[in-house]
Amino acid sequence: MQRYFIKSVLKTGDQFQLDSNVSKHWLQVMRGAAGDQAEFVDSQEALYLGQLNDDHSVTVVKALESHVELPVEVTILSGLPKQDKAEWIVQKATEMGANSICFFGADWSVAKWQPNKLGKKLTRLQKIAQGAAEQAHRTHIPTVNYFNTLKQAIAELSFDHLLVAYEEAAKQGEQARLVKLLNQVKPHERLVAVFGPEGGISPAEMELLAQNQATVAGLGPRILRTETAPLYFLAAVSTILELQ
Amino acid sequence: MQRYFIKSVLKTGDQFQLDSNVSKHWLQVMRGAAGDQAEFVDSQEALYLGQLNDDHSVTVVKALESHVELPVEVTILSGLPKQDKAEWIVQKATEMGANSICFFGADWSVAKWQPNKLGKKLTRLQKIAQGAAEQAHRTHIPTVNYFNTLKQAIAELSFDHLLVAYEEAAKQGEQARLVKLLNQVKPHERLVAVFGPEGGISPAEMELLAQNQATVAGLGPRILRTETAPLYFLAAVSTILELQ
Repeated sequence: MQRYFIKSVLKTGDQFQLDSNVSKHWLQVMRGAAGDQAEFVDSQEALYLGQLNDDHSVTVVKALESHVELPVEVTILSGLPKQDKAEWIVQKATEMGANSICFFGADWSVAKWQPNKLGKKLTRLQKIAQGAAEQAHRTHIPTVNYFNTLKQAIAELSFDHLLVAYEEAAKQGEQARLVKLLNQVKPHERLVAVFGPEGGISPAEMELLAQNQATVAGLGPRILRTETAPLYFLAAVSTILELQ
Repeated sequence: MQRYFIKSVLKTGDQFQLDSNVSKHWLQVMRGAAGDQAEFVDSQEALYLGQLNDDHSVTVVKALESHVELPVEVTILSGLPKQDKAEWIVQKATEMGANSICFFGADWSVAKWQPNKLGKKLTRLQKIAQGAAEQAHRTHIPTVNYFNTLKQAIAELSFDHLLVAYEEAAKQGEQARLVKLLNQVKPHERLVAVFGPEGGISPAEMELLAQNQATVAGLGPRILRTETAPLYFLAAVSTILELQ
C-alpha cells in the first residue's frame, strides 16, 4: 500500500486535503480513485489508514501500529564524497534506518560544496530522503545536514556514543568493538558514526575523534568504499538490535 | 597499496610479466616505477608482494598473510532487476564479500536479458566484479552468472543452506531466523540467498523455495529495495561471523 508523509496532525475520523505532491502521485501516477486507501504518516510520526473521497479529500479510517524505526537514533556523519554519492548515501541510509544523515567537508574530501549552492543541494537531498522513507515504509524522514568541518559537526551534534569506521582498524583486527558497543547501547540512545571520504580520515581528524572519546571500529576485513561503509554499519546495527 | 589479480601461479623469487591491463593501470595510470611494490593475487587466490623491475617485469618478494574472505561461501541469487542495478549489485556485493553473484529471470522481473546479449552482459559484470574485488582487497573474484528461471538456478547451484529474503517475513515478524541460521552454519558451508526483483517473488517461486526447504528470513522491519536487500544480508553475515 502507498505511504505518504503529511504535514498536519491526524486523528481517526479527520478529513483532510492532499497537498499537491501527494495528490499528483496518488491521483495521477497511481490513478487513485474514490474508496482507495493509503497509509499516512502525520507530523508527529503517527501512522494512519486513510480513504480517498469523491472530492479527493481523505478521511482518516483508523490509527495503525508501526514498529519500523531502529531502537537507537543513528546519525551517519560522512566526509563529503564525490559526485552523486551523497545522493546515493542519503537514499540507502534512509532505507536502512538512519535517523539523520550529515556530511562534512573533510580534510581529504575531493568534492567541495560552494556555500551558494548548499541550500539547493540540501533541499534535493532532503527530497530524496523523503522518497526513500516513503518507499521503505518508515515513519521518520531523516534530516539531511552539512557541516563545514568535522570539528563543527561534533560540536553541533548531540550524541551518547561517537564512533568512527577506520579502515586501519580492519588491519589492526579491531573487529569486535562495534558489536561490543551495540550490545551496550540502550533504547533511544543517539549514535553518531563517522565515515571518511574517498581519501580517508586525516590524522588531525582522527586526533579530534580521539579527544572526543570516539570508538574506533572496524567493519570487517574488506576495504569498503566510502558510500558502502555506512550501509554495512546500519545493517550491523539492525542485525544486532532488531534481528535477535 | 595497489592489488592486482593475475592468471598464473606464483611463488617467492618468481619473475613474471604484467598482462596488458595490469601494466596499463600500474605503469600508466599509477605511474609505477622500478622499485615500486604492489600486491598480487595468483590463480590459486594466494597473496604475494611483488616489486617492479627496470624491464617492467615483476619479482615476487614474499608471500603475504590474508584473511579477507567471509568464512562461508555466499551466493547472492537475485531476480533480474531493472536498468543498471545488476551492475550495482555486483559491485557492492563483491565489496561486501559475496563468493558469487547470480541473477535469474524471475516471474515478476520487468527487465529481460536477450539470449544474444547475455554473453556481453556477463563479461561486463565479471569485469566490474574483478575491479571491485581489487579495490576491496579481496583474494577471490566472485563469479557472475545468469539463470533463465529460479528453478534452473536451484537445480544448478550446489549449497548447504538455501535462504529467501521475503518482504512479508518482516510483517510476520520472522526476524530471528537469519541470525539463528548464521549461528548454525559451519566454516566453508555454502549459502544461497534468494532476493526478488522489484516486483517481488511470485507465489509459484515461494512454493518452489519451500519445496527446497528454503529458510524464509526477514531483513529487519523496513522495506528494502531489491538492490539494497543483498547488501543488508551480506553485512549481517559479516557482522555475525566476522565481528564477534
